[in-house]
Amino acid sequence: MRRSEGRSASTPAALADELWPDVQPETARRLMAAGLECFARQGYHATTTRDISAAAGMSSAALYVHFPSKAALLFEIVRSGHEQILAVVDRAVTGAGDPVVRMGRLAREFTEWHARRHAVARVVAYELKSLPEDDYRTVVDLRRRIEHLTRGLVREGIEAGVFEVRDVQAAGRAVLSLGIDVARWYEDRMRTSPRALGQQYADLVLRMLGADPA
Amino acid sequence: MRRSEGRSASTPAALADELWPDVQPETARRLMAAGLECFARQGYHATTTRDISAAAGMSSAALYVHFPSKAALLFEIVRSGHEQILAVVDRAVTGAGDPVVRMGRLAREFTEWHARRHAVARVVAYELKSLPEDDYRTVVDLRRRIEHLTRGLVREGIEAGVFEVRDVQAAGRAVLSLGIDVARWYEDRMRTSPRALGQQYADLVLRMLGADPA
Repeated sequence: MRRSEGRSASTPAALADELWPDVQPETARRLMAAGLECFARQGYHATTTRDISAAAGMSSAALYVHFPSKAALLFEIVRSGHEQILAVVDRAVTGAGDPVVRMGRLAREFTEWHARRHAVARVVAYELKSLPEDDYRTVVDLRRRIEHLTRGLVREGIEAGVFEVRDVQAAGRAVLSLGIDVARWYEDRMRTSPRALGQQYADLVLRMLGADPA
Repeated sequence: MRRSEGRSASTPAALADELWPDVQPETARRLMAAGLECFARQGYHATTTRDISAAAGMSSAALYVHFPSKAALLFEIVRSGHEQILAVVDRAVTGAGDPVVRMGRLAREFTEWHARRHAVARVVAYELKSLPEDDYRTVVDLRRRIEHLTRGLVREGIEAGVFEVRDVQAAGRAVLSLGIDVARWYEDRMRTSPRALGQQYADLVLRMLGADPA
């Protein structure tokens, strides 16, 4: 536990409950938390199903009851992570307020999600290419929806005359990129809380889009 | 070679020459290029010295002539990557022009470096925590110098009245974070060239700092 391991929740079980409230039964959640821990520490390719079941305090046989393979467990972590992010973005884009208010909310909550769940966000962002082809396509489709919603809001702001942007694609990508990279460097012991960081980034994003954060 | 593998140079030897012109002899450069390829594809922990020597078309014994261990080879890749980035940042910060001109240059060249060398930049950014403790500290020291120079330029701009920033630390980190994350998503087949992307990001960064890019 030298660096960068998650301390978002006090125990693996509490972390699993926070990350995947909808996954049933609790044993499957525990295995996902153990997989996350192993992938974050040593990478997907160097992790065996035996490592995961040992980290969860279970037998290898118990793992296969819930996940047919290591790849299936990775997919479940990556898919559910993307669906949570999509929900955050969708809520911000379709919510109340003008484009400045909604983009501020998007940047704030997107950044906060990546800081608070940096361990899962790292695996979601960096182990993507380890997924089998079909699973990869499913996740790429979720990413496209997230990017599409974000670009749409950038365009709305331009049309409303509150954003000033040269290249919608580059600006939309930069908004998300700033938040995603938080997962690379954020650690729980940092002075800035996920919420405070989200607020700082909302200000930076609005300025980047030529809007006045105040 | 499904996704995201580098095509920056046409052959591994050409890539090695471009990335590490100062590393001698040529055999050591070839081993570094092979290591980079393996780490980028399967992660550091899942890579063996045998994988690296095989990818370089050499015997395992030949690897140990140049690098005492897999960790030593990773360190050489990560250290030289950071030193190149430090040189880019130092040149921009200490060069000619007012803070707006120099920050534009920093963001442009930093982003361009990460796009053009995305394979090496990924390993540099994401395998950092796999380094042995002493090597890790050496690299963290290089990172601190890069961050220190960037924050210094943000402060210069505030004092000159050309930047308007609420939190120097957050702004400095965001400038670098935007560029670093390019390595995660950039691929050679993209329409936007590394140079054009650098220009787009320089504009976004200057706006983020409350300056007028024009």
